[in-house]
Amino acid sequence: MGTVTAGHQALLVDLYELTMAAGYFENEVNYPSTFELFVRELPEKRSYLVAAGLEQVVDFLESVQFQSEEIEFLRSHPTFAHVRKEFFDYLKHFRFSGDLWAMPEGTLVFPGEPILRVSAPLIEAQIMETYLLSMINCQTMIATKATRVVAAAGGRGVIEFGSRRAHGPEAGVLAARAAYIGGCVGTSNVYAGFRMGIPIYGTAAHSWTMTFEDEEEAFEKYCRVFPDSALLLIDTYNTVEGARKAARMGQKVKGVRIDSGDLLKTSQQVRTILDDAGLSGVQILASGDLNEYKVRDLVQHGAPIDVFGVGTELSTSHDAPALGGVYKLVEQTVENSFRYRIKLSPQKATYPGKKQVFRFTNARDQFDHDVIARDQESSQGAPLLERVMAEGHRLGPLPALHIARERAALNFSRLQERYAAFENPDTYPVINSQALEELFQKMKHLN
Amino acid sequence: MGTVTAGHQALLVDLYELTMAAGYFENEVNYPSTFELFVRELPEKRSYLVAAGLEQVVDFLESVQFQSEEIEFLRSHPTFAHVRKEFFDYLKHFRFSGDLWAMPEGTLVFPGEPILRVSAPLIEAQIMETYLLSMINCQTMIATKATRVVAAAGGRGVIEFGSRRAHGPEAGVLAARAAYIGGCVGTSNVYAGFRMGIPIYGTAAHSWTMTFEDEEEAFEKYCRVFPDSALLLIDTYNTVEGARKAARMGQKVKGVRIDSGDLLKTSQQVRTILDDAGLSGVQILASGDLNEYKVRDLVQHGAPIDVFGVGTELSTSHDAPALGGVYKLVEQTVENSFRYRIKLSPQKATYPGKKQVFRFTNARDQFDHDVIARDQESSQGAPLLERVMAEGHRLGPLPALHIARERAALNFSRLQERYAAFENPDTYPVINSQALEELFQKMKHLN
Repeated sequence: MGTVTAGHQALLVDLYELTMAAGYFENEVNYPSTFELFVRELPEKRSYLVAAGLEQVVDFLESVQFQSEEIEFLRSHPTFAHVRKEFFDYLKHFRFSGDLWAMPEGTLVFPGEPILRVSAPLIEAQIMETYLLSMINCQTMIATKATRVVAAAGGRGVIEFGSRRAHGPEAGVLAARAAYIGGCVGTSNVYAGFRMGIPIYGTAAHSWTMTFEDEEEAFEKYCRVFPDSALLLIDTYNTVEGARKAARMGQKVKGVRIDSGDLLKTSQQVRTILDDAGLSGVQILASGDLNEYKVRDLVQHGAPIDVFGVGTELSTSHDAPALGGVYKLVEQTVENSFRYRIKLSPQKATYPGKKQVFRFTNARDQFDHDVIARDQESSQGAPLLERVMAEGHRLGPLPALHIARERAALNFSRLQERYAAFENPDTYPVINSQALEELFQKMKHLN
Repeated sequence: MGTVTAGHQALLVDLYELTMAAGYFENEVNYPSTFELFVRELPEKRSYLVAAGLEQVVDFLESVQFQSEEIEFLRSHPTFAHVRKEFFDYLKHFRFSGDLWAMPEGTLVFPGEPILRVSAPLIEAQIMETYLLSMINCQTMIATKATRVVAAAGGRGVIEFGSRRAHGPEAGVLAARAAYIGGCVGTSNVYAGFRMGIPIYGTAAHSWTMTFEDEEEAFEKYCRVFPDSALLLIDTYNTVEGARKAARMGQKVKGVRIDSGDLLKTSQQVRTILDDAGLSGVQILASGDLNEYKVRDLVQHGAPIDVFGVGTELSTSHDAPALGGVYKLVEQTVENSFRYRIKLSPQKATYPGKKQVFRFTNARDQFDHDVIARDQESSQGAPLLERVMAEGHRLGPLPALHIARERAALNFSRLQERYAAFENPDTYPVINSQALEELFQKMKHLN
C-alpha cells in the first residue's frame, strides 16, 4: 500500500546530487556550506510570487534517510563502481543536521530574493536540492496563481477543483494546499482536507444525474441524502430546465452548479428562476475552464455567481506552469577558512554569501521596496528570512496553514496596485545593498 | 516517513466522488456501470497523444482501500451528517472488484477514443475517477511531449532532467516514467531508476566546481571518483576555458555538459577543443531551457551535441501543461435492465455505450484512420482496447516499461508525416461507426 513514491524519499533526487555527494565524500570536502534557493526571473505576466511549500520542506529535512535497499541500488549501479564502501556506510546513517532559514509561507517574494537558505555539511545540503526545488517551485507557483484568481473574484469564493488535471495524485494535494494559501476558500481534494485541514467542497457529477431516469428524481434523491449541503449540478441535459427542477426542491437545495455554456447568460437565467421561486439564498457555483481573466470578466459584467470552482488552469498554473527556482552555493568554510562562492555563467551569475531580505514600507504601510543585503547588515527594513530549523530540527511548530493564508492576503493587500496588476504590472523595486554589490564585484575580479 | 501523500490513496479524490458514493449507497442504485476515459480535444499544437499511466492505474485499482482514520474523517465531516452508519461500514470493506479495458501504454491515441474503460458497481467505478484521470492525464501528456522532443533530436539521445521543476516530487517520478515511454533514453531522477528500472544519468552541478579553488582541480577530483563515467559541467566560469581544462583530463572524461550561452556556437567551440586534444570520443551534452523547437534548430544547424538534457519544458509539458481527459458514464444495468447513458451539455456531449477503437492501416502499413465503434461490432481494423483486469485483479503481468517505450516508437513511426508534424499538423481521421452514430441519435431524441 502506498502512493507511487511512498517511503523512498531520499532517492527523489537527480543522480548528480548523489554523484557529487560521493565525490565530496571521497575527496574529503564535506565543508560547512550554505545554499540559497531563489527565482532569477518571474514567469511572464507575474509581478510577484507567494512563498509556499515550506512545511513539506521541513517535514522532509527532518525525516529524510536512505533505506537499505536504496543504498544497495546505488552501490550496485555502475556509476558508483569506484566509490568506496565507506560512502555507503555514510548513507546508512545519513540525516540532515543543518540549519534552515526561510521566508514564512504566504510572504510575497520577488526575483533574486532567497526564499530559503540551507546551511549544512556540503553533502547534506547538496542532496536536498532536488526535493526542495520541486516542492517550493510547485507550491509557490500555484499559490501565486491562486492569488490572481482570488483577486479577480473580488470577494466571491474560489474553490480549487483541479485534482484530475494536476500532475499526478500528489500534485493535486500540493495544488490544493498552495491554492488555499493563495486565498481559495477550499478544495475538492479530500486528502487535503483529511491531512491538512483544508475546507473541502463537493457537488455532484453528471454521472449522478445520468444514473436516474429523470433529472428531477436525481435531484430529489441527492437532497434527501444531503439535506444541509446539496449542491446540484444542473447542466446535464438543459441548464434552464435543470434550474427549474432544482427550484422545485425548495429549501432543500443549498446551491446549484453550472459547468458549461455561456456562464454569464446562464447564471442570470438561473438566478431569475431561483429568485422567482423564492430561493434567493440558493447559491450559484460556476465551473468549467475558468481562469483569472474569465472570472474577472464575469464579475465585471455582474454575473450572479457566488462561488467559482477553478480547476485545470489554477491547479497547473496553466499560463506559467513552471517556476525557475534555483539552489546555489553561496559560501563555505574550508578548513577553518571562510570562502564566498560565486558563479559567473552567462545570464546565470549568483551573488556570494549569506543574504537577508529587508522590506521597506511607505507612509501608508504599503510595500515600497526590498533590499537584498549581506546577512550581517543591519537595516531599517523588516527582515523576511527567519530561522526555522537548527541542527536538523524545527525550532518550534510552523505556523498553521490558515496563518500562511492570512499572511498572503495581508501581504497582497499591502502591494501597490501598479505592482499587483494582472497585465503589464510595474516591476517592484528590489535592490542589492551596497555591501552586497561591492562583495560581488570584488569576487568577480578575483575569478 | 513517507511522501506527502503516502498511505492514504483512497482519499486522493474529489469530494463529490464520495458524496455521490454515499448517495448511490443510500438510494440503493449501486448498478453495474461502465465509465470511459477519453480526451475530447487535443491541446494546441498536438495532433496525437501517447497513452501512458496504465501501470499506476492498475496498481491503484488493485490496492485501493480506506483506512479506519480516513473513514472516521469522512464520518465526522458535516457533509456526511445524514449518511447512515452502513455506508461507512461499506467503506471499511471497500475494494475495487471490476473489469478494466485499456489501450496498452505507448499506443497512439486520438480525440474521442477511450484510453480506458472501467466496468464495476457504480460506487467503485465512481470513486476511481479522480485518481485515474490525474494519472492518465499527466503521464499521457508528458509521454506525448517527449515524443516531440525525441523526434526533434533526430536520433541523438534525450535525457529527462526536469524533476526540480516538476509539480512536486511524485510528479518528477511520473514525468521520468512518461518521458521514457515517449522515447527518452533515461532520466536524472534516481527514484525512477530504483523503482522502475529506468536508466539514470547524472553529471555535476556548479556547486561541485565552486567547492574547489580551481576548476581544473574540481575536474580532476571528479574524474578520480568516476573514472568510467565522468561528465563534467564546464560553464561555471567560462565555457571555452572550461573545455580546455576538461580536455586536459584526457581519456578520463567521458563527456562534458554545457548549460548556458549560445549552445550552437559554444558546442562547436568545445567540439574543436576536444577534437584537437584527440578526444573525439568525448561526448557533448547540452542543457538549459531546451524544448523541441530549440533541439530541432540545433540539430538542423549541425550543432555537435550528442545528448540533450531536457528539463522544465519536457517535465511539465510546458506549452500544453494540462490534458483534458474526462471520465464518463456510458452504460448501466438497472435491475436487470440494460440502459445506455448519455450527456448532452453544450460542447460536452458524450456517446453512449461501451466502445472499441479499431485502427486501419494503409498499404504501406502506416496508420490510415481509426473507427470508434460499439463494443460488439466486428471490424477489419485492429482493436486497441485490451482487457487488463477482471474482477479486481490483473489478468497477467503488464508489459515491461521498455515494451511500452518500443510500442510508442513503433506507433510513431507508423504515423504519417502530415499527422506527426510539429506545427500545423493535419487532423488524423477518427470516425464513429454507423452503429455508434445511430445509437447516439436515437438516445438524443429520447432525452
